[in-house]
Amino acid sequence: MNSRSQDSAGFAALDMSTLGERLGNVPAIADKVGRDISQWKVREVGDGNLNLVFIVEGDKGGVVVKQALPYVRLVGESWPLPLKRSFFEYHALRRQEKRAGVGSVPAIYHFDEGQALLAMEYLSPHVILRRRLIEGAILPKIGRDLGLFCARTLFRGSDLAMPTRERKQDVALFCDNVELCDITENLVFTDPYFEAELNQHTSPQLDGIVAELRADRDLKVEAQRLKHLFAAKAETLLHGDLHTGSVMVTETDTRVIDPEFAFYGPIAFDVGMMLANFWMSYFSQAGHENNGDRSEMREWLLSVTDEIWSVFRAEFSHLWRTERNGILYASSIFEERGDTLASEQALNTVLSEIWTDLLGFAGIECHRRILGLAHNADFETIEDPDLRARCERPALLFGRQLAVNRSRIHSMDEVNEMARIIASEDA
Amino acid sequence: MNSRSQDSAGFAALDMSTLGERLGNVPAIADKVGRDISQWKVREVGDGNLNLVFIVEGDKGGVVVKQALPYVRLVGESWPLPLKRSFFEYHALRRQEKRAGVGSVPAIYHFDEGQALLAMEYLSPHVILRRRLIEGAILPKIGRDLGLFCARTLFRGSDLAMPTRERKQDVALFCDNVELCDITENLVFTDPYFEAELNQHTSPQLDGIVAELRADRDLKVEAQRLKHLFAAKAETLLHGDLHTGSVMVTETDTRVIDPEFAFYGPIAFDVGMMLANFWMSYFSQAGHENNGDRSEMREWLLSVTDEIWSVFRAEFSHLWRTERNGILYASSIFEERGDTLASEQALNTVLSEIWTDLLGFAGIECHRRILGLAHNADFETIEDPDLRARCERPALLFGRQLAVNRSRIHSMDEVNEMARIIASEDA
Repeated sequence: MNSRSQDSAGFAALDMSTLGERLGNVPAIADKVGRDISQWKVREVGDGNLNLVFIVEGDKGGVVVKQALPYVRLVGESWPLPLKRSFFEYHALRRQEKRAGVGSVPAIYHFDEGQALLAMEYLSPHVILRRRLIEGAILPKIGRDLGLFCARTLFRGSDLAMPTRERKQDVALFCDNVELCDITENLVFTDPYFEAELNQHTSPQLDGIVAELRADRDLKVEAQRLKHLFAAKAETLLHGDLHTGSVMVTETDTRVIDPEFAFYGPIAFDVGMMLANFWMSYFSQAGHENNGDRSEMREWLLSVTDEIWSVFRAEFSHLWRTERNGILYASSIFEERGDTLASEQALNTVLSEIWTDLLGFAGIECHRRILGLAHNADFETIEDPDLRARCERPALLFGRQLAVNRSRIHSMDEVNEMARIIASEDA
Repeated sequence: MNSRSQDSAGFAALDMSTLGERLGNVPAIADKVGRDISQWKVREVGDGNLNLVFIVEGDKGGVVVKQALPYVRLVGESWPLPLKRSFFEYHALRRQEKRAGVGSVPAIYHFDEGQALLAMEYLSPHVILRRRLIEGAILPKIGRDLGLFCARTLFRGSDLAMPTRERKQDVALFCDNVELCDITENLVFTDPYFEAELNQHTSPQLDGIVAELRADRDLKVEAQRLKHLFAAKAETLLHGDLHTGSVMVTETDTRVIDPEFAFYGPIAFDVGMMLANFWMSYFSQAGHENNGDRSEMREWLLSVTDEIWSVFRAEFSHLWRTERNGILYASSIFEERGDTLASEQALNTVLSEIWTDLLGFAGIECHRRILGLAHNADFETIEDPDLRARCERPALLFGRQLAVNRSRIHSMDEVNEMARIIASEDA
């Protein structure tokens, strides 16, 4: 029931030679690229783990065409993955655009469910945020844009704002994204903490600390509590894979892409994952100093974490005070009785839980990117394994402190000071 | 999407004169009652708020026939309520029987979705538990049976035990029970805390304390936090309306009935609601002493709360150690490494959260049964309003203490001692 068709009858993967024929007669695409398909130039640019991605350019302009494959591209046909993830990506993008505004995600031109195919805005000259951070680029708008994106999508997708009938229908819809959830549940929360088959880490340099972490009872219990929270708390529609590889940037523009892991989960999850990737970038900078000192970059990265959280908090509070139209903390029992402080007190309790939980999710994300299957280019592009391990080790220590001590950390200053201490002691 | 048909085309409410004709040719029913419908005796016994309930007896035996109406029976056609609640009741009963065992709920003989009609075991000489408690009956098995029912249904319906794909499909299925959730969300968590239209309380005797509670910022914030937890934490399949009016008993048998409010929510909800009804029975006993002293009954009721929780905890722990086959706290990262204490530490964190939250839900339940629309016979059958108010007032104070101080209360002894103190000071 409620399952999207999982068979791929009629599905055919695109390739560069047939793409023009197959998509040239789709008006929404031809309008953007140009009607003369003989002029189309097609490039396959997918560098992700899961899908095909083409850039199609013609005499009028360009589009990006993203197509799911019935298996995990990174692993191959031995790991099947349903095409319906494209359906969830499409629906998540539409909701994100509505909630965070036009220009927060790529515009969608066309969706073909049977072909698991999305045609969308070709973002140019945008570059993946992670790559810019590896290069040492300072992007003045990024903290603010990401803080706003998180606050707006996560607040407006919850029972704080939505009609609950609509939210419950949406929960039911996204419950069917079970295979992508399964990836998160296993790869993020479980596999890093035991000798799972697909795990990898910089070895032998990290063997010692990896063994310590996998024997660390408090850490493993916390990781599983966070998994419990992720699996059970259907609070809002998450992006589900919000890291610096899911953001495209220029100096002046920020777009969030690739929400195929979308699922109803805890507000803290997206925020914590995103912050973790800035902290990992911080720890990785020491591996990228061949072209010059990265001290300024490092401090800027910490300032971004501070800005993401403070912008998130400010915008979430603003929405709380102006758009709290859902079933939770209803103004009928607070403000209408003139008790503004009740609403503010409730806001404190909600933000306080988000804070504590996001630190936990951030800690776990640091681990899975160094111990699990899917690593980060931040570290992976450091070729010298000794140098790479010297960057990864403090990130592992930092992640452990966040996950286990999260209920005793109260401010971003404390977190960032801890990052500095761990980085300098281990340098 | 995923919505059960909400129109009632073809639906016809049963009545005593047509019931035989309409159900006589259903083999599963005729087998139980007897094929000669001229021998059928039909009684309408529905004393609930929502549905029609018939007892049908014939030469072979009896069945109970429960039929939903397209509106709230207590209020009338002005409050429509979809027939599909019968579908959710049917599916919840099947799951409960599987999880808590044959004999924990009535056996189901027949379900007709279009007629919103369930034919089930005629429980005789069973009586509604609440009525027995009002009469002052001591039921030796009740604490154990209810503790086991809660532990088994709630553990086995969660990601602790179920294949998560199945749980997610089930979450989606029950998300459509939105109208019944809406009743809980409003009547339990919100209406009691402001002057909602349908509210009622013993007036003027309780006017003072009711005004105090409705101005109590800490209480209202806690009630809304609990609503947030109820709405967002899709942890397990709840009964959803588990109180002493949803249990039928003899001296030796206990059956849980009426799970039409079934929904995925926090484990603590069912347990807290059930305990609250024993505490309300405790406070109501002073109103039923016309036939003799109820001191022994009162102490027994407190001992039942203790037994429900300790049996729940023991059985939940047993299932944790023997049936933890879901995605959470997987043995692959705990026991397989020989670290039994990791699993026990995680069990402590899970039980500790259930405990804290169930106290909150119990506190809120005490309030809504005295301040909201749906009151309890425990208090309602006390005819003298002064006497009734003297019983209700301590229950209100008790509920407030539970809801607001729940994170600082560690044992059932403390809770029950608080009940005794409040009862004696206010008597």
